[in-house]
Amino acid sequence: MGGNRQILVVSRPSGVPGPEHFAIVDGKLPELLDGQVLIRNQYLSVEPAMRGWLSDKGNYTEQIPLGSVMRSLAVGRVKDSRSPDYRPGDVVTGWFGWQEFAAVSPGAIIRKCKEVDLPPSLALGVLGLNGVTALLGLEKVGRPHPGDTVVVSSAAGAVGSAVGQIARRMGCRTVGIAGGPEKVAICIEEFGYDAAVDYRSAGFRNALAQACPRGVNVYFDNTAGPISDEVHGLLALNSRVVVCGTASIEAWDPAPTGPRLERNILVKRASVTGFIVLDYLDEFESASQRLAEFVRDRSLVYREEIMGGMECCLTSIEDLYAGRNMGKRIIRLH
Amino acid sequence: MGGNRQILVVSRPSGVPGPEHFAIVDGKLPELLDGQVLIRNQYLSVEPAMRGWLSDKGNYTEQIPLGSVMRSLAVGRVKDSRSPDYRPGDVVTGWFGWQEFAAVSPGAIIRKCKEVDLPPSLALGVLGLNGVTALLGLEKVGRPHPGDTVVVSSAAGAVGSAVGQIARRMGCRTVGIAGGPEKVAICIEEFGYDAAVDYRSAGFRNALAQACPRGVNVYFDNTAGPISDEVHGLLALNSRVVVCGTASIEAWDPAPTGPRLERNILVKRASVTGFIVLDYLDEFESASQRLAEFVRDRSLVYREEIMGGMECCLTSIEDLYAGRNMGKRIIRLH
Repeated sequence: MGGNRQILVVSRPSGVPGPEHFAIVDGKLPELLDGQVLIRNQYLSVEPAMRGWLSDKGNYTEQIPLGSVMRSLAVGRVKDSRSPDYRPGDVVTGWFGWQEFAAVSPGAIIRKCKEVDLPPSLALGVLGLNGVTALLGLEKVGRPHPGDTVVVSSAAGAVGSAVGQIARRMGCRTVGIAGGPEKVAICIEEFGYDAAVDYRSAGFRNALAQACPRGVNVYFDNTAGPISDEVHGLLALNSRVVVCGTASIEAWDPAPTGPRLERNILVKRASVTGFIVLDYLDEFESASQRLAEFVRDRSLVYREEIMGGMECCLTSIEDLYAGRNMGKRIIRLH
Repeated sequence: MGGNRQILVVSRPSGVPGPEHFAIVDGKLPELLDGQVLIRNQYLSVEPAMRGWLSDKGNYTEQIPLGSVMRSLAVGRVKDSRSPDYRPGDVVTGWFGWQEFAAVSPGAIIRKCKEVDLPPSLALGVLGLNGVTALLGLEKVGRPHPGDTVVVSSAAGAVGSAVGQIARRMGCRTVGIAGGPEKVAICIEEFGYDAAVDYRSAGFRNALAQACPRGVNVYFDNTAGPISDEVHGLLALNSRVVVCGTASIEAWDPAPTGPRLERNILVKRASVTGFIVLDYLDEFESASQRLAEFVRDRSLVYREEIMGGMECCLTSIEDLYAGRNMGKRIIRLH
C-alpha cells in the first residue's frame, strides 16, 4: 500500500478526450494533512461532461490543469481520517479523481452512501450525478404537468433513462430518442417509455412526429444538434427545453451551425434553458434519498456497465460519445 | 359618409409584405348589427409583426385570409353604438383594420383611451402594443435586477426604446444596439441608454463587449440573426433572453442557419424564452395605465412618425424592416 496508481492529464483535447490525453503513472500514497480524509477508491466514474472539464474554452467548472490527476467522481471507503466527521470504513462518494487513493478535505466529499441495501456503485449513476441531474433538471426547468409529452434524447443513457422513468412517475407520456434498434428496444422494454424512435433510421422525423401527436411539452436535451432540431420543430405552446448536454456535437470551437431557433421559440413561446446539476449541490442529499426510494419501489431501474481496471478509463469518454456504452459506464478498481 | 376606404390583402408574401400584396378599394360603409360598435379610425398602426400575421407558416395568430381587410390595431372614435358599453364620442383602440370605418363587436376593442391629457395616437405605441410588450416582456421574462446589464436590439425602435427606459427605471445599466450613427445618438440623447453601439460599424463586436464589461444579464431581442449572435457570446451566468422579434431575418422559410447556441446556453445556464404580448391581454389595461404614468413623469419618452393618408400603409412594413423609420410608424387618416 505504498503506491498510488493515477491517471494524469498530459495534453488538452480540442474535442473528445482519448488515451493520448492521459498517462497512467505510479504516484506516491498521499500524506494525510490535518482535517483530511484518506479514501481508497473502489469505483471511478466516466462522464460525458469530462470533455467540457478538459476543454480550454469557457465552461462551467474550473479547467483541469495539465499534469494533474483527472477530475472524476468516485466511490470509495475511508481508510484513515483526520476529520471528526468521517471514520475508517465509511463509504463515501465525491471528487476523488481517477486514482487509487485520494487524500481530500471534507469539501470534496459529496455524501456518505447510507443506502446499505443498494450497491455502492449507484452513487455514481442513478443515485448520483446522473439521477440527480434527471430529477432536478425535470423539476427545476422541465416542470412537466401530468399528461404532458416529454421527449428525451440519449434516452437509454445514464441521465436519459432516469428522465424518462421519472417523467412517467409524474404522469407524463414519455418518448425516447436513441441510436440503433437495440437501444430503442431497451427504452421500451426496460425503461418503460411509451414510445421510442431511432435517430439513425431514415424515418426518424416521421416516427418522432407520430410519437408526439399533441406536440412536445418538455424536451430534455442531452444531445443538441440535428436530433434536437427535429424535436424543436414539434414543440407545443409554452414548452420547455432543458439543455442538459450536447453529446452529438464533436467539438464546439468553432460552434457548428444549424437552423436558427428564434422564430420557433417566439411563435411557440418556448423556453430553452441550460441546466447544470452542480448549481444544486445543496439539494443533492435529498434528491439522492428520493431516488433511492424510487429504486427500491422499482419505478426507477438502471443499467450499469462496469469495467475492470484503471486502464479502461482511457477510452471510456470516447465510448460514451460514440454511443458504445449500454448504461452508466463505471470503472471498478478492486 | 357612404363609402369606406379599405386595404385588402390580395396575395400572400413569403417575406416582408410590400405594396404588391395589398389593394386599396372603396368598400361600403358597414351596417351595424346588434351589439356592435361603429368606429371611425383616426390612426392606423404598422407593426413588424404584420409579416407573421400574413405568413402562411405556423404563427401565433390566425392567418389573415386573402381578400379580407388587413388586420391592424387602430385608434378611432365611436360614431354609433348598439352596445351598452360604448357611446358616440368615446375614443377607443383595438383591432379595427386598415380601413376608414369598422363595425366591430366589443371583443375587438382593447380599451377606451381614457388618458385625455395625452395624444390618442399613443394608444398605438408607447401606451399600446409596443409599450406593453416592453413592460411585460421585461417583467415576465427578462426579470432584471437593479444593477443588471440589459441589452436591447432595435434599441431606438418603438418597443426597444421603451425597454431601455423601463429597464433604466428599474436600476439597470442599459445598452442599446441600433443601425447607424443617427439612431445610436438618439439612443443616448433621447432614450437615456448608458451606452449604444452601431451594429453596422466594423467595430461592433468590440464596442458591444466594452459596453458590457460584466456581461449581459438580460437581452431583449427584437432582431435575432448575427446581431444577436454577438450578444449571446456575452451572456452572463443565469442570464435571460427575451425573444420578442426577429426583425433582422428577411424570411424564415427555410430557416436561415447560424451558430448553434446550445453549448453557450448550457454553460451560462441561460434561458431563451419567446414572449408575445397577446398572451397577456388581461394585463393590458393595468400596463397601459402604468405606462401613462411613466410618460407623465417623463421617465418614458417616445418618438412617433406619423404619416398622412392610407396609401402610406402600403410601403410602411417594408420601411420598418429596412430600418427607415424613426419611432413608431403611424398612419393618420384625418
